[in-house]
Amino acid sequence: MAADPGMSIAALRSMFDEWGRPAHEPEGVSYKSDKIGGVPGIWAFPSDADVTRVILYTHGGGFAVGSADSHRKLAGHLAKALGVSAFILDYRRAPEFPFPAQIEDAVAAYLGLLEQGIESQRITNAGDSAGGNLAIATVLKLRELGQPIPGCVIAFSPWIDMALRGSTLATNAATDALVGKPILEGMISMFLGGGTSPLDPLANPLENSFRGFPPLYVNAGGAEALLSDAESLCEKARGDGVSVRLSVVPDMQHVFPVLAGRADEAADELIKIADWYRSL
Amino acid sequence: MAADPGMSIAALRSMFDEWGRPAHEPEGVSYKSDKIGGVPGIWAFPSDADVTRVILYTHGGGFAVGSADSHRKLAGHLAKALGVSAFILDYRRAPEFPFPAQIEDAVAAYLGLLEQGIESQRITNAGDSAGGNLAIATVLKLRELGQPIPGCVIAFSPWIDMALRGSTLATNAATDALVGKPILEGMISMFLGGGTSPLDPLANPLENSFRGFPPLYVNAGGAEALLSDAESLCEKARGDGVSVRLSVVPDMQHVFPVLAGRADEAADELIKIADWYRSL
Repeated sequence: MAADPGMSIAALRSMFDEWGRPAHEPEGVSYKSDKIGGVPGIWAFPSDADVTRVILYTHGGGFAVGSADSHRKLAGHLAKALGVSAFILDYRRAPEFPFPAQIEDAVAAYLGLLEQGIESQRITNAGDSAGGNLAIATVLKLRELGQPIPGCVIAFSPWIDMALRGSTLATNAATDALVGKPILEGMISMFLGGGTSPLDPLANPLENSFRGFPPLYVNAGGAEALLSDAESLCEKARGDGVSVRLSVVPDMQHVFPVLAGRADEAADELIKIADWYRSL
Repeated sequence: MAADPGMSIAALRSMFDEWGRPAHEPEGVSYKSDKIGGVPGIWAFPSDADVTRVILYTHGGGFAVGSADSHRKLAGHLAKALGVSAFILDYRRAPEFPFPAQIEDAVAAYLGLLEQGIESQRITNAGDSAGGNLAIATVLKLRELGQPIPGCVIAFSPWIDMALRGSTLATNAATDALVGKPILEGMISMFLGGGTSPLDPLANPLENSFRGFPPLYVNAGGAEALLSDAESLCEKARGDGVSVRLSVVPDMQHVFPVLAGRADEAADELIKIADWYRSL
């Protein structure tokens, strides 16, 4: 996208759908194409999972690219680590569907899970990058709607600040192999569609209140440009009284758990998340 | 490829990797990233499958594009229908690796299965389009090497004739939504690399003998340009004494079983293949 700003969104999506390639297949996980609350997606069922517990997974890709397909393996690894099932959403993407279509879809799927008899406390909202933002913003929206909120939230390298105020955007620019300011600016323009402020409290959770927010696990790679977003998010949530766990793994890149099956750092991170989840 | 002949092979591969999108996830199938005989690929394990039986699946994509990822779901549906496991090969692709690299990789994986104790009679070579050619050429190569051959072969819409002599290339040109002569010519140039004849008996099985070939199931869509390839293949093999089943489904496109989970024609075809397989 940085190299060829004129590339079509279709071509970008085709390229980005290889994002999940580095992950090995999580063994013992089967899948089902489905719709929940009218929103399409893929179920991941680890063998022996507690299927009364569900991860509602919102994939990354700047709200514009990525899919349930591209993030199937990462979500499958997370579900397996936690011993629960996962539903990976194919939410509507920008620019065809700007903010707040993504949050509306995640809310619809979440309410669909409740309708199927899943208890809110047994739902985990999880996502990576822009999908980490969605996992959080969905909870904020549910609170606004007076709906029961999920039991906890997990965000891999979340991209939170649509105003791009994080200091590591500059200080980690040289070490981040994947994300940089020009790409984020392009994504923001598609996501906000010109009509929404980068400080809208549902597009930018740093501008919202985290009072009453459930336990939150956040990670980031030490080498990535969005490290500040993870740090600012945790600081904000802690300030509002939320139980927060932040895991920054040195030298790692954006959403490094995609290396699951290939890199010890990814496996170790999944174990840390599972330990945290079981301690709740 | 026809619209933009200058498109890079990397961009083509990115686009083509969405090929498997139409297929729904086959339910109850789990996966494992692995190498067999040094060749990378993905195992598909349907629950309750007879894992002493293995489909060695060679994906389509003109020998140049496509992957174990893009064909994971189709191979998973086939494995589930047959009640066996499948190993979907990530063989080396043209143009970086022209003929016969693809056959070498399929032979290496096949011999790797034998080394793991799988009986040759319990292996099924299967593939679609160019991968259907590979499924067949691999058997011809194994026979040449004096190795035991697989128990049967399944080819979805195989692309067999590198000399493009099939009459439906012209007569079905208007109804085929996917494949046409210009694309095939581009693929041939990459696959044969300039040094191999389109009549080489391992690149073009119509120029080989099928004596001693195992039972062969071939299908094709009635609307597709490569229908003649399926018909000529069956005529050739029958002439050499092979037990052949040809299934031509009216109005269907190239490799229509990729619609598994969405179209009755795909489901019906998988049932027909399973009935044939169990009758052997």
